[in-house]
Amino acid sequence: MTINLEDIQLAAQRLDGVAIRTPILTSALLNERLNATVYIKPECLQHIGAFKFRGAYNRLSQLSPAEKARGVVAFSSGNHAQGVAYAAQLLKLDATIVMPSDAPAIKREGTARLGATIRLYDRETESREEISADIARQTGAVLVPAFDDEDIIAGQGTCGLEIMQQLQALDCVPDCVLSPCGGGGLLAGISTAVKGCNAGTKVYGVEPQHYDDHYLSKQAGERVKIHPQLKTVCDALMATTPGELTWSINSKLVDDFLRVSEDDVAHAISFAFRYLKLVVEPGGVVALAAILQNKLNITGKTVAIVLSGGNIDSQSFSKCLEEFPSP
Amino acid sequence: MTINLEDIQLAAQRLDGVAIRTPILTSALLNERLNATVYIKPECLQHIGAFKFRGAYNRLSQLSPAEKARGVVAFSSGNHAQGVAYAAQLLKLDATIVMPSDAPAIKREGTARLGATIRLYDRETESREEISADIARQTGAVLVPAFDDEDIIAGQGTCGLEIMQQLQALDCVPDCVLSPCGGGGLLAGISTAVKGCNAGTKVYGVEPQHYDDHYLSKQAGERVKIHPQLKTVCDALMATTPGELTWSINSKLVDDFLRVSEDDVAHAISFAFRYLKLVVEPGGVVALAAILQNKLNITGKTVAIVLSGGNIDSQSFSKCLEEFPSP
Repeated sequence: MTINLEDIQLAAQRLDGVAIRTPILTSALLNERLNATVYIKPECLQHIGAFKFRGAYNRLSQLSPAEKARGVVAFSSGNHAQGVAYAAQLLKLDATIVMPSDAPAIKREGTARLGATIRLYDRETESREEISADIARQTGAVLVPAFDDEDIIAGQGTCGLEIMQQLQALDCVPDCVLSPCGGGGLLAGISTAVKGCNAGTKVYGVEPQHYDDHYLSKQAGERVKIHPQLKTVCDALMATTPGELTWSINSKLVDDFLRVSEDDVAHAISFAFRYLKLVVEPGGVVALAAILQNKLNITGKTVAIVLSGGNIDSQSFSKCLEEFPSP
Repeated sequence: MTINLEDIQLAAQRLDGVAIRTPILTSALLNERLNATVYIKPECLQHIGAFKFRGAYNRLSQLSPAEKARGVVAFSSGNHAQGVAYAAQLLKLDATIVMPSDAPAIKREGTARLGATIRLYDRETESREEISADIARQTGAVLVPAFDDEDIIAGQGTCGLEIMQQLQALDCVPDCVLSPCGGGGLLAGISTAVKGCNAGTKVYGVEPQHYDDHYLSKQAGERVKIHPQLKTVCDALMATTPGELTWSINSKLVDDFLRVSEDDVAHAISFAFRYLKLVVEPGGVVALAAILQNKLNITGKTVAIVLSGGNIDSQSFSKCLEEFPSP
């Protein structure tokens, strides 16, 4: 069970004219500061403000008519929620989303606006897996996993395929690509696309310091489950163990994992505000944070980074700007 | 004395590979809310965070070797300052910028970082024109006007040319184009480009309510000078009379002028944060504000809007998000 470049190319056909082909951006200031050539893939400009729409639409558009009639159910802190809700809206399906009660308001409201039914749960006392399974049993709805699914991964991989195509159009092959890593779906899709296009390009996953399950799994040589003592602002990257399928891909294709602190994240959000003029959420900004903090030596290199989402509440955003006024 | 489409095409050649060809963005949510097809030209993603680099580079790159050796001087509240400073840096010229002491810190710091010499002045008691003329007399530096100059206007017009080319590539001709209007340089360039490509596309300039010198000039049938009693947050649009050259163009080519309130501006900044994931400054957001506030009937129409800059201090930005949490 795995995916290859062809699966991603097929997903790209399904998404053609439906998903936004996000641009590749550059910043002379960023290049000068890092002494490197950095290409930015801003998935915050994707529908629903995050890459998650890609995988969701690729999955939902392939449901059978009978499945479509029964609708879908998904659990997510917010971006997968909105991705599934918007894909369901476009395909005219019913969608139920199981969300933690502490999800950012912007993500909850976005999901509701897209017409999905929301079932809130308590992260501490309830199991989102059980609630979702119950709903699936009662309604016959198809459960749409957030990352551990071939169609989801292939959909997210179209982001990586676009990076390689867009850079090729600039006569450029990146030395490395950095992507955020939560459950590992985006990273698995991107690493498959990137290595499929050019085996020599290195791929890095970036995690929050306290949610470094991929980093530790790589150290251990097998999937490990972590038990974080500290919270992270990166609500989109709070997975505690790599997905089974995503790990089977990422353990082979990802060259290394990098970790960034909570301060690194807030600093990068303020940097993106001030110099890139982009709104990026905590979980979406970690690849930028990694290069700004020299977690990888990229001097003289050509680097692509994915800014995977921009759904952040205004209070959290303002706090980052206040903490790092001169990023 | 005027400019035509060919001047803009020549400017585009000079800017090719130097300026950023900013993308065209869309938002399903914006289209749904306005029941229109809106294309967004985000010049906040241009070098120095505003369109002003286009005109400055088009002007400076055409200086003679003797002029280049003497350097340039310009006065500006911030974006023209940074545009001239960055163009001068690329072309290895000395630049002196005369800036008001109340210019946003982000613009002052940006100008200094680009290596320009800054001469601050007091808006109330000093004349920037006299200070700049003095500097030009003493050093032989060439004065680079902010808007009332054929090369500056032609450079800004490349933004309008790109809009028409990028929409043509999508098999689309816009019914109308909306642009911010301060001194009228961007608007003169855009109206020349747009009408040159398609005479039937309507062009609108948007001003802050209290700085509506173009609106009033159109009513009067001649250039009028206003004496605003109230300030505006749109520091980039504080001209009190249309430029002579820009008005000779805009009075012929611009179909109408629209006005937005201070609240409309803050609301649109918050909207761009929340739904477009873009950082837009007050003067840059007025075209978006105009369509969000139904200042023009665009139902069923195809509309292009220019977001002309994104250089806003974090405190001002956070204040807009706080005032309009659900834009």
